[in-house]
Amino acid sequence: MDYAKEALRLHEQWKGKLEIHVKAPLENAVDLSLAYTPGVAQPCLEIAKDINRSYDLTGRGNCVAVITDGTAVLGLGDIGPEAGMPVMEGKCALFKAFAGIDAIPLCIRSKNSEEIIHTISLLAGSFGGINLEDIAAPRCFEIEAALKKQCDIPVFHDDQHGTAIVVAAALLNAVKLSNKTMGELEIVISGAGAAGTAIAKLLMDMNFGDVILCDKDGILDPEGNHLSPQQKELAMRSNRNQKRGSLQDAMKGADVFIGVSAPGIVSEEMVRSMADHAIVFPMANPTPEILPEAAKAAGAFIVGTGRSDYPNQINNVLAFPGVFKGALSVRASDINEAMKIAAAKAIASLVSEQELSCDYIIPNALNKQVSEVIARSVAQAAIDSGVARQSSKD
Amino acid sequence: MDYAKEALRLHEQWKGKLEIHVKAPLENAVDLSLAYTPGVAQPCLEIAKDINRSYDLTGRGNCVAVITDGTAVLGLGDIGPEAGMPVMEGKCALFKAFAGIDAIPLCIRSKNSEEIIHTISLLAGSFGGINLEDIAAPRCFEIEAALKKQCDIPVFHDDQHGTAIVVAAALLNAVKLSNKTMGELEIVISGAGAAGTAIAKLLMDMNFGDVILCDKDGILDPEGNHLSPQQKELAMRSNRNQKRGSLQDAMKGADVFIGVSAPGIVSEEMVRSMADHAIVFPMANPTPEILPEAAKAAGAFIVGTGRSDYPNQINNVLAFPGVFKGALSVRASDINEAMKIAAAKAIASLVSEQELSCDYIIPNALNKQVSEVIARSVAQAAIDSGVARQSSKD
Repeated sequence: MDYAKEALRLHEQWKGKLEIHVKAPLENAVDLSLAYTPGVAQPCLEIAKDINRSYDLTGRGNCVAVITDGTAVLGLGDIGPEAGMPVMEGKCALFKAFAGIDAIPLCIRSKNSEEIIHTISLLAGSFGGINLEDIAAPRCFEIEAALKKQCDIPVFHDDQHGTAIVVAAALLNAVKLSNKTMGELEIVISGAGAAGTAIAKLLMDMNFGDVILCDKDGILDPEGNHLSPQQKELAMRSNRNQKRGSLQDAMKGADVFIGVSAPGIVSEEMVRSMADHAIVFPMANPTPEILPEAAKAAGAFIVGTGRSDYPNQINNVLAFPGVFKGALSVRASDINEAMKIAAAKAIASLVSEQELSCDYIIPNALNKQVSEVIARSVAQAAIDSGVARQSSKD
Repeated sequence: MDYAKEALRLHEQWKGKLEIHVKAPLENAVDLSLAYTPGVAQPCLEIAKDINRSYDLTGRGNCVAVITDGTAVLGLGDIGPEAGMPVMEGKCALFKAFAGIDAIPLCIRSKNSEEIIHTISLLAGSFGGINLEDIAAPRCFEIEAALKKQCDIPVFHDDQHGTAIVVAAALLNAVKLSNKTMGELEIVISGAGAAGTAIAKLLMDMNFGDVILCDKDGILDPEGNHLSPQQKELAMRSNRNQKRGSLQDAMKGADVFIGVSAPGIVSEEMVRSMADHAIVFPMANPTPEILPEAAKAAGAFIVGTGRSDYPNQINNVLAFPGVFKGALSVRASDINEAMKIAAAKAIASLVSEQELSCDYIIPNALNKQVSEVIARSVAQAAIDSGVARQSSKD
């Protein structure tokens, strides 16, 4: 099938992948009096007395906004806010299909961080959570950080944290199969943008070992003056042995390679230079840093990619629906580190000891039961870490 | 039935009157490849080349945002953005039920006009139109005026123009039954806020005759220094004979009374002082300026209210679904005066000569066929007045 052509045809037919359905009957004057005036005044007054009642009396408690500025859409780059909307609608569709969450796609006509932050913060009363999407680095970092401070609802940049959670889950299970010790891994990450930095942070927070972060110029040098504040901070915290040089230099002797960078930049030779039982996750999409068959031929022990046509698909859809479902279920004010770690462990736990193998380290991305299990763990982590505003749904 | 109690119970049960349904199948890897990555890249690229393609390839062409700041919700006043959401959801439900339009409820946490304008204008790429709702006067005027300039999609404050359109429609038919001449009417409007000023403007633009606008202090005096710029402009344009005094003074000899003000402020005596065949629309909700039976007893020829339990219900739901449906169908960049007039005439035309009577001057508010007829007229008016960006839907 020509996916591009068929996808275009279908999008023209759908004219939007989402539609609104009305839950309240509106057939007669009594219906209107209850769903609209005059009856609607009563829920309004209840919320005016206590804003938290908006979670009971409007759709807010099950509603997430999926918001982009259109600057880093898929691998297409800065294509503009309107052009990002088919992806936002797709994301919203996944929220519904995988977690029953009503998600609203929004695009913002600005590339100014302050404007974007201000716009989103003023809308926070409309939603139970905010999923930032496809916003270019380094702007995405400051936007997310500011919104997390300003908003009383969870703000989650999926390109960062969704990816990090799923990589961490895959790595947890990959380590179990290898002869490696968690805490002593040397992990090379290629790509120091939104995904790469978030993966590095989460893996360090989970005590996987040391991380060496590389961009297209090689290993990040904390002395380098082209680094963003976020990259500099990471470069200081990581790379214990202060390795310097190219990606090729970084990979020598490394236990784990994680690619969120560019197609084809890893050679078999580079994989061969890694430690025994190398774990290789080349996740550039649609063409990975190295094809799985080549990585295997070069001795990789476990390989995972972003693709559905190879084993071990490391796909965000395993994380974000359940993460938000859990956060919403306890009206969490934040999605914090503890909740992300809980999500990664929950995803990993869905592969049983019996099932676990080099070609099955992570649940199938299409498994719609996954989100429920993640949601329970995330909700508990929210409660334990003090960001839940109710102890459980209902 | 205790509407307040039952409405509260239902809102607790619904937990939001709207939900998202997904039009694209998401059952297997092929489905995901078409609705999401990698297939979705193709519609994104098409829109990046030509933003107008967003109307074909996303839900934008059938999507309206219903936006409030929560400052003038129903008759409840400034109850806050979150507390306004049950009304916004109700409005969105009506958009869907009466015109098949997907509407998204949003509330903005600000009372600053500049902030509200900026926030909404940055979101305009997400929608095909914007319905402003329950924003207090005089802020609603400047917000709408600025947005109409800044946005390439229609912006419509329903509390102003929806009300004005339906009143104009009712008046068109009422005049047919009376011995009065359109163009020579003396019309008294009680209430000089959003609705009152918009009604005054539209009726003057439609050449109904002269308007005398009153607020709680009586007839607006263009020399008065408590008037907003909008009120001052109207006071200058209207009241040809420069009447001064109270509402009671204004009503003496008037042909038409239109109330969008406060319950019970019009006495039988005041109606009795009007011209023969007086047309009386006391629309304060839920308790009108004078009850229909009292107005009739005082000699009113035709009476219309906002209530469903009396004849001639003058209800916005007759206008806004069809107005937006028509605007969206030709991708109008604006909802202009010509389109509003077309809508009023279309609504009036839905009552046939045979049906027309003093107790039936306007179609039933629950008639879901109305919007289609209005939409056709509004679309034609958009084309004729040069704000349509395509000649017809598809």
